Amino acid sequence: MELLKQRILRDGRALNEHVLLVDSFLNHQVDVKLMKACGEEFARRFADAGATRIATIESSGIAPAAMTALAMDLPMVILKKSVSSILKDGIIQKEVFSFTKNAPYLLTLKTHFVTPGDRVLLIDDFLANGEAAFGGIALLEQAGAQIVGVGTVIAKTFQPGMDKLRAAGYRVEALAPVKGMSEGKIEF
Amino acid sequence: MELLKQRILRDGRALNEHVLLVDSFLNHQVDVKLMKACGEEFARRFADAGATRIATIESSGIAPAAMTALAMDLPMVILKKSVSSILKDGIIQKEVFSFTKNAPYLLTLKTHFVTPGDRVLLIDDFLANGEAAFGGIALLEQAGAQIVGVGTVIAKTFQPGMDKLRAAGYRVEALAPVKGMSEGKIEF
Repeated sequence: MELLKQRILRDGRALNEHVLLVDSFLNHQVDVKLMKACGEEFARRFADAGATRIATIESSGIAPAAMTALAMDLPMVILKKSVSSILKDGIIQKEVFSFTKNAPYLLTLKTHFVTPGDRVLLIDDFLANGEAAFGGIALLEQAGAQIVGVGTVIAKTFQPGMDKLRAAGYRVEALAPVKGMSEGKIEF
Repeated sequence: MELLKQRILRDGRALNEHVLLVDSFLNHQVDVKLMKACGEEFARRFADAGATRIATIESSGIAPAAMTALAMDLPMVILKKSVSSILKDGIIQKEVFSFTKNAPYLLTLKTHFVTPGDRVLLIDDFLANGEAAFGGIALLEQAGAQIVGVGTVIAKTFQPGMDKLRAAGYRVEALAPVKGMSEGKIEF
């Protein structure tokens, strides 16, 4: 997606070979018009997937996933990283390790919001090692859903997540696949 | 906002006098079309506020805030509840107590994304005791912004947040002000 790649080149910052900072338009400050364009692009790429629901992972995936759900006229479910004390009934959980935060967290889903037969499109902001995506997929499949695709705004394709997802049979679309980085340099 | 009130009456669940469960359309499963309608209603109510930026608090406020930012053609900034290990420079923090999670957290803002002179409209999903709102306001004002309004999808007006914000001079708009609840009963 050319608009997104140009924005990453203009406003993103490769801090080193592994860390791409995009907090000025994607995950701290958010350009919602760009997110809307991303949502429409996911809708176009997954038009034939027969999705019945959008899922995303709290919290940087919410903006692009909401715009995708809007473009596809589907409900969205947010896989939570922390659980409210209000109600702990009917939930399933999966431990996921976050390389960014260097700590594990419990990804949580209330099974009531995903039903057997649901065809789920999982949307997130980043795909790197694939830990979050595989954790989300495991929860959604445990709830009886079929994963019809994984859409990521940015993929660091030099890290193993995308290849592992494809090797496991999942369809993956990355709007901006980054094939390599070094300090101050980003290559698609 | 009638559409929202009807949805709360239909799908919301008052568990007791304090807890309103709306996770089937607002904060776990999300009806993005309803969020778009909420965003457009905030845009209408705050049309004269001269806002230059939308702010929200991670993570249930993101969907309605993103739709507000889209309707008002403004950038959005997300006040974070946890900080990435990637970059800790240029951030300011404020401890906020969450009654829902019964624990404090550090609300975090990279000051680079709010500039002195910014006129910020703070959008969130719930207003109850006002802890999160006052914490967010304190951070945004510390960064030099002026708060031109606080918009909440739901306000529990029998809890002190809304009155305290108004007493402190802030303009508050609640799309669904709930004036009382008991098990199975919700009153606007």
